[in-house]
Amino acid sequence: MDPYRVIEVKQSVFADNNKDADALRRELKAQGTFLVNLMSSPGSGKTTTLTKLLAALPPEIKTGIMEADIDSDVDAGTIAATGTRVIQLHTGGMCHLDADMTRQGVRQLGTEDLDLVILENVGNLVCPAEFDTGAALNMMILSVPEGHDKPLKYPLIFQVCDAMIINKIDVLPYFDFDMEKVEQYARMRNPNIRIFPISAKTGEGVQALAHWLAEQTRGWKEKEPL
Amino acid sequence: MDPYRVIEVKQSVFADNNKDADALRRELKAQGTFLVNLMSSPGSGKTTTLTKLLAALPPEIKTGIMEADIDSDVDAGTIAATGTRVIQLHTGGMCHLDADMTRQGVRQLGTEDLDLVILENVGNLVCPAEFDTGAALNMMILSVPEGHDKPLKYPLIFQVCDAMIINKIDVLPYFDFDMEKVEQYARMRNPNIRIFPISAKTGEGVQALAHWLAEQTRGWKEKEPL
Repeated sequence: MDPYRVIEVKQSVFADNNKDADALRRELKAQGTFLVNLMSSPGSGKTTTLTKLLAALPPEIKTGIMEADIDSDVDAGTIAATGTRVIQLHTGGMCHLDADMTRQGVRQLGTEDLDLVILENVGNLVCPAEFDTGAALNMMILSVPEGHDKPLKYPLIFQVCDAMIINKIDVLPYFDFDMEKVEQYARMRNPNIRIFPISAKTGEGVQALAHWLAEQTRGWKEKEPL
Repeated sequence: MDPYRVIEVKQSVFADNNKDADALRRELKAQGTFLVNLMSSPGSGKTTTLTKLLAALPPEIKTGIMEADIDSDVDAGTIAATGTRVIQLHTGGMCHLDADMTRQGVRQLGTEDLDLVILENVGNLVCPAEFDTGAALNMMILSVPEGHDKPLKYPLIFQVCDAMIINKIDVLPYFDFDMEKVEQYARMRNPNIRIFPISAKTGEGVQALAHWLAEQTRGWKEKEPL
């Protein structure tokens, strides 16, 4: 058997994506699965962060991954090598996932026995932020080489995210990246955003992120039904 | 007077963007203005590359810049500081520019006396590649920290670009970026793509890029009418 399957997801036929997203969120809550939508620019290190996060999460939290891309199976292959259940979603040119596309992935992955599912969205700071996927938590990565001014230029994604991971802090000495400014700009967009500076390469900061994500996953299970 | 104006561009009412793009291209050809559409991910260094390029272009090539962003005037401010004619376009949430939005910018910038106009598109590897802006040349930046696998994941932008700038080569020692592989993958998408490795930070490679762009600008003027 192949280590992962590739699914061509089709754009939603539902007119009201928000309603559909709420329905998916309720379904997943009922089965006790915490869905996280991970967004970022291309090349900010989503997949590398996931491989480190998977190793750092407590083993009792059963986790699955959905990799979304316009084309290629590079990322699902990387995740499959860690032994984690993973599926590759191809959007066929689409720049984002909506709730129904996410549901197609959830069905194909098989999530009934999973506590945590992380959806790696298409690399894009604009469009994914506009579509509720049905996730219980939105998380984004901003990497040091991208610069600290991104919350000024791409406001929505910072508004809709519960947490911002600042990746590639190992290369801080080689870039003009101001950690204080990025926090200030991000909080202008979302005063409650949680910030996790990490290096997916060296592993620095990943433990704190994994700890927080495990807490969120457990908290979701204990919450009243939606 | 302010060093630059900010224009809220509205989405096109034209059903056929390709036809509209051809019309804009003909208009600009008739007045001898070479329009370049510069695309990339957020944070790959489009604006920094432009500031270096502006200094390296032959002074007889009169150049103007159109900065497109969802929000903020950060980039127009940076370009205005170089003394170049510049305008900031706000897309109001839109992830790309179409031909009519580009025309609105061209009109407001005033391009009759310009030989070269560079449009810095919204930072996004997906959507801008789908819309012909009316430019005579498409150019993209891929920066070293983004990784060499991007042509596998975002095929269209590599297909539609005449040239790929590989920026931030000064940080090659700190990233696992394979220059041979990126060239191989990019040529899988577009065998004729021109490749310019540069560091906008140190200036390395910018002269070769400026030389080529000046040649393209002159060649456009000498071409038969479209």
